[in-house]
Amino acid sequence: MSKPCIITVAITGSLPKKKDNPAVPVTVEEQIASTREAYEAGASLVHVHVRNEDETPTSDPARFKAFLDGVREACPGIIVQFSTGGRSGVGSERGGMLYLKPDMASLSTGSCNFPTRVYENPPQLVDELAAKMLEHDVKPEIEAFDLSMLYQAIAMSEDGRLKKPLHVQFVFGVKNAMPLERRALEFMVSELNRLQPEATWTAAGIGRGQLEVNRWALELGGHCRT
Amino acid sequence: MSKPCIITVAITGSLPKKKDNPAVPVTVEEQIASTREAYEAGASLVHVHVRNEDETPTSDPARFKAFLDGVREACPGIIVQFSTGGRSGVGSERGGMLYLKPDMASLSTGSCNFPTRVYENPPQLVDELAAKMLEHDVKPEIEAFDLSMLYQAIAMSEDGRLKKPLHVQFVFGVKNAMPLERRALEFMVSELNRLQPEATWTAAGIGRGQLEVNRWALELGGHCRT
Ligand SMILES: [Zn+2]
Ligand SMILES: [Zn+2]
Ligand SMILES: [Zn+2]
Ligand SMILES: [Zn+2]
Repeated sequence: MSKPCIITVAITGSLPKKKDNPAVPVTVEEQIASTREAYEAGASLVHVHVRNEDETPTSDPARFKAFLDGVREACPGIIVQFSTGGRSGVGSERGGMLYLKPDMASLSTGSCNFPTRVYENPPQLVDELAAKMLEHDVKPEIEAFDLSMLYQAIAMSEDGRLKKPLHVQFVFGVKNAMPLERRALEFMVSELNRLQPEATWTAAGIGRGQLEVNRWALELGGHCRT
Repeated sequence: MSKPCIITVAITGSLPKKKDNPAVPVTVEEQIASTREAYEAGASLVHVHVRNEDETPTSDPARFKAFLDGVREACPGIIVQFSTGGRSGVGSERGGMLYLKPDMASLSTGSCNFPTRVYENPPQLVDELAAKMLEHDVKPEIEAFDLSMLYQAIAMSEDGRLKKPLHVQFVFGVKNAMPLERRALEFMVSELNRLQPEATWTAAGIGRGQLEVNRWALELGGHCRT
């Protein structure tokens, strides 16, 4: 059961700074240029976090809008996915740019540990972000950092808090969250297939697990992500 | 592969109050009496949270000590397990009674969502509680509310932060955490058996799932809990 392969580019995580890696695109202009490069190389989806002048992550709608407008002009047809991840703001701020109607936005449907802290997505916030995505017709990419987040997303799509079919990204290799265990991916994919066969999925490995997880995803029939 | 069945009694969760259920044992004296009843009926392990006068949960070592002394006298040989769960205090307080050397203490090795909030067990706190259990020779019961907590516990027992063999309790039926999916228990048990065959485990269903999860655990060779 192989599905068409969507090459995703995550042009910037919320953490790396220029002092760590001078090649990291930070300004909106740099992010657009870097997306354009990936687009020309075949990427069809871009996952984006935006930054303040001082490179700290932000949910500032003005910056998201500048990116969205610029990238739609530079990369016709590319799927733009906004991050609602936790470093870019607190609580409701994290969805404050969804009215801009990106094609997609990330949505974590639970909480877990990260390398040095708790990645907090309290139930009320998850529901609020989901409601905004429904309102503005933004397709969520469920970021499943753990098994219960998968079940939670399925439950939310059963009771109408999310639209069907789901699109899920399983995330591996984050310290203190899901380790690089292929059996875990196989199980999560089998549960997704059992409970919502029309759903699509991808898998991402963070850091050193990136290539390995891409290979698992290809072999198991998911999307790939670069 | 059936193992001897240990009947556990969880005499009080941290939440129910007398006004909700007048039968709930709240004072240390009531808790000891209630444990004694279960002990006479065959219980061999007691999991305990203690309360303040106003019935709110607490980590107060004096109350834990009164319970421990009283129950050891009333129920010779019973295994006493202290809760280090999150409602009873913030941060390090939660392990402030481990020097009393109960036989066991609960330890959640990650964070997840609960019905109305994030159940926060940040990595530093998990490590600190684990270190205190090592120091005072208290055997942890790993409370696995999600799959990554199982992998985390195994990793901690591989690198020496926890002693082997692990004892794990899989918890099902908490809203926004792990739903009542038997396949999830089967998978987690198979991973535990693969990665640490000498480990023991049990499973608990919260609320309406209690009997169902007890049955799964019996059928899959785990302990039971009442
Ligand atoms: Zn992201
Ligand atoms: Zn995809
Ligand atoms: Zn408890
Ligand atoms: Zn046990």
